[in-house]
Amino acid sequence: MPNFTEKTENIIIVRIDRDGRRKEDDLIIKEHALTIALSDGKFVKDRPYVTMFCSPSDLDILGLGFLLSDDLIDSIDDVESLSISEDGGELKVLLASDAHLAENLLTKRDITSGCGRSLNPYDFLNNLKINELSSNLRISANSIVQLSSEFQSMSNLYKSTGGTHAAALCDADGILIFKEDIGRHNAVDKVFGECLIKGIEIKDKLILTSGRISSEILIKVAKRGIPIIVSRSAPTSMALRFADQAGITLVGFARGGRMNVYSHDYRIE
Amino acid sequence: MPNFTEKTENIIIVRIDRDGRRKEDDLIIKEHALTIALSDGKFVKDRPYVTMFCSPSDLDILGLGFLLSDDLIDSIDDVESLSISEDGGELKVLLASDAHLAENLLTKRDITSGCGRSLNPYDFLNNLKINELSSNLRISANSIVQLSSEFQSMSNLYKSTGGTHAAALCDADGILIFKEDIGRHNAVDKVFGECLIKGIEIKDKLILTSGRISSEILIKVAKRGIPIIVSRSAPTSMALRFADQAGITLVGFARGGRMNVYSHDYRIE
Repeated sequence: MPNFTEKTENIIIVRIDRDGRRKEDDLIIKEHALTIALSDGKFVKDRPYVTMFCSPSDLDILGLGFLLSDDLIDSIDDVESLSISEDGGELKVLLASDAHLAENLLTKRDITSGCGRSLNPYDFLNNLKINELSSNLRISANSIVQLSSEFQSMSNLYKSTGGTHAAALCDADGILIFKEDIGRHNAVDKVFGECLIKGIEIKDKLILTSGRISSEILIKVAKRGIPIIVSRSAPTSMALRFADQAGITLVGFARGGRMNVYSHDYRIE
Repeated sequence: MPNFTEKTENIIIVRIDRDGRRKEDDLIIKEHALTIALSDGKFVKDRPYVTMFCSPSDLDILGLGFLLSDDLIDSIDDVESLSISEDGGELKVLLASDAHLAENLLTKRDITSGCGRSLNPYDFLNNLKINELSSNLRISANSIVQLSSEFQSMSNLYKSTGGTHAAALCDADGILIFKEDIGRHNAVDKVFGECLIKGIEIKDKLILTSGRISSEILIKVAKRGIPIIVSRSAPTSMALRFADQAGITLVGFARGGRMNVYSHDYRIE
């Protein structure tokens, strides 16, 4: 395997504590720049779409999940091929010719007058009202406590570097997919990308994240139709409002045998 | 003061722990959507530039800091006026007519073929090499321990909601500016914005952050010429490489009386 896939780097630091000051070996989490370039075999050829900063693992899966979350693809059928450059810096994605890439890129530019950095959460909210979730998924509080504990024990990169977030897809019996990344959005996108490649149904599962739940994370999860999101940390008011209206069960501070249920608590038994 | 400035919301949650399940009053951190619209009094009129998600305090200061970090302004002289809408959703910024807004927006669009979401960190690195920092600032490890402890004791929003990051500008004697926000980038931008408004020199100070130090945070701090950055959390490999080459002292895990110094440790005495 090429060197770019190493997830950590060995470094020498100066450690200062009550015992004094000394040089020590240490591990630091690797940060990697990945550019996704899109083609559609017709009008668009290797167009750089985004440069993202991530952990250098599962880069193809991360790319797929990112394109899904960003509404560039709907299913694996929209992707003809994927190839990662030798140094891991570029992921080339050839979309199926009926993926309307040129149109999509144009529309995105039109909508987002802030040059790609705008998002109107309220528009999203209005659309959501129509499609409120009605999943029958139920899970016991005990299962969540166990999942949360299993989740923490799997977070090896966090344990060794303190520099990552994690996300996992679960059912009541355990963790099905577990991903770590320097970015909390990336970790969730890696989970989505793996579901896409492996054909795993996501709408009857729950998602676990180490990170805080802001509106953007909530929207990402809501778009996939996931009925329950569980975090070890805090949600924001806007995430709660969206979860409430979208019919999503939002659980926060799930750690140490306790949790706060913020919305639609009937799914937690 | 209008209601949008409330930093938290009172909600009712379902708390589940070993004692059972019950409804309880709780506080949640407020998330607010702010659109910055730019004018230059000539060619550009109220152009939406970005919509950001933030804590609804110091919105004008956040906007200034963001525009500074995003290279749209260099100093307070580039800003003619600021006005915030009644609901806090829009910050209108009238730039001085010689701020070259139209050109800047055009260049940004040209450079960032990923529609505003690309950033080539290596280009930045090449520019930095020329301007390596040579600040004479020195600080004792004891002072950092004290600053870190003072920093933590000021993080009231974090204590009550668990949903914020904080950033502070400090000298050896104490914390000069302290800001909290749901986003770690926003907290740093708020510090920069306040320095801009109050005319506080930043190049002989150090910055403290609760958040992890990724390349983007490091670049933000390096652009301002700040010689020391201290975090309570972990840095990434790319942030360390940039700090090393830019002459910045990078300190991580500064908590509980200890710290790791990752680069240019001669500034910590």
